[in-house]
Amino acid sequence: MSSNAPIGVFDSGVGGLTVVKEIMNQIPEESIIYFGDTARLPYGSKSKETIITYTRQIIHFLMGKGVKVIVVACNTASALALETIKEEINIPILGVVKPGAKVATDTTRNGKIGIIATEGTIQSGIYNDYIHQLNPQLQVFGKPCPLLVPLVEEGLLDDSVTTEMVRRYTKELLEKDIDTLVLGCTHYPLLRKTIQKVVGDQIALVNPAYETARSLKEVLIQNDLDKKDMEKPSHQFFVSDGAEKFKRFAKSILPCEVVETKDVNIENY
Amino acid sequence: MSSNAPIGVFDSGVGGLTVVKEIMNQIPEESIIYFGDTARLPYGSKSKETIITYTRQIIHFLMGKGVKVIVVACNTASALALETIKEEINIPILGVVKPGAKVATDTTRNGKIGIIATEGTIQSGIYNDYIHQLNPQLQVFGKPCPLLVPLVEEGLLDDSVTTEMVRRYTKELLEKDIDTLVLGCTHYPLLRKTIQKVVGDQIALVNPAYETARSLKEVLIQNDLDKKDMEKPSHQFFVSDGAEKFKRFAKSILPCEVVETKDVNIENY
Repeated sequence: MSSNAPIGVFDSGVGGLTVVKEIMNQIPEESIIYFGDTARLPYGSKSKETIITYTRQIIHFLMGKGVKVIVVACNTASALALETIKEEINIPILGVVKPGAKVATDTTRNGKIGIIATEGTIQSGIYNDYIHQLNPQLQVFGKPCPLLVPLVEEGLLDDSVTTEMVRRYTKELLEKDIDTLVLGCTHYPLLRKTIQKVVGDQIALVNPAYETARSLKEVLIQNDLDKKDMEKPSHQFFVSDGAEKFKRFAKSILPCEVVETKDVNIENY
Repeated sequence: MSSNAPIGVFDSGVGGLTVVKEIMNQIPEESIIYFGDTARLPYGSKSKETIITYTRQIIHFLMGKGVKVIVVACNTASALALETIKEEINIPILGVVKPGAKVATDTTRNGKIGIIATEGTIQSGIYNDYIHQLNPQLQVFGKPCPLLVPLVEEGLLDDSVTTEMVRRYTKELLEKDIDTLVLGCTHYPLLRKTIQKVVGDQIALVNPAYETARSLKEVLIQNDLDKKDMEKPSHQFFVSDGAEKFKRFAKSILPCEVVETKDVNIENY
């Protein structure tokens, strides 16, 4: 595998671009191939079997593009499919949950951590597991927030309805006296301001994207896969539906020019 | 084709059960095979090409089960895929849009009709087209309501957040002085009370499900496909994900016992 090959990143849709943005900030020399499964989103309320099937197709697509490492930039897929898929491929693969769990563990002072995420991620119990591997003393409280992804997709980032839903979703976590809240879905960093306003400044918000990009950098170096040539990076974006809509969104959050976005028939992979 | 064969009905998820309920009320002797594409819902914001691909796979699945007629119990698929698919199969197929347009046309007194539906349905302009075929004088105003499906799926049928979203979505339609409002998505009849409360009693709500079942009955008789034997009907339910969750929902809205719900790998059809 060439160390100059691109990094593969995927998500159910646009949310994973918050991870891409961090990767571009921290290792700007690397090329990225992104896939967003916009035809089949959202992943959050679907079963483990379905998420594994979808993930397997996407991995197959990305490996066909010659990627050297894969980042599962989707909490639901990281929670439900990563362990299974890892056994099936021969390149490094990392998710967003483990990095997020690490930062949360390092951040909390009172030992009480809240997780907001999709139904699939919360039901998997995976944040709980990873955090307890790092420190069995910590208390972890999870809350599924199924309406936050549709609200973000509708662009209601700073809106009374979104504020009301965030209030309902975080109420019981605040009652548990958490001091740290993990944004356990790649869409949620786009709601950071609203969430911070609702929970108050005394609660630390953890965005796994930053730590994921840091872990990725380490994995590349450990495997001697960090880019060696001096060529400018080139990025490619693929989606399973609505390339134009995706492109507009990507342009609004990424620091680079999004030259081209292509539609892919992912069910054939 | 045997007139004792079952009727095939499909939707992106549970919404189409509001149509199944009407069919069971109006022609209780008929057997039904239902498919809900729960792995790939929602359909409302996806492209025409994707909806046609999904519809084709589902039609293939239902025809493999020997259905005598197909009801597209999803406004988005009726709007985006029905015309294309009709040319490809040799059994009768009907959607929910044409019947809905007919009732709206018969209902309005001041000639101003509002349509609330998904983005896909509104953008297709199909309600407009059908209504104008029936009466070119009528004025039609459409409004996409992308958050209503997720709100129904979350069970927030009678909730302040849902009321607020319905208020926003219907505001400009009310300003146009409509007297008739089409519930142009099979999920929306589940919000009938909330919608009626927001728009007021002077506005007539049109649920295409009733008229669809009536049209279906006519189509069966015209094609000599109405059930002739005296055997009790038997119904089967299939979904592409989450059979148990679907079964609980179906039980809560259908008048019959939902004996079995099976998972289907629809991408293979």
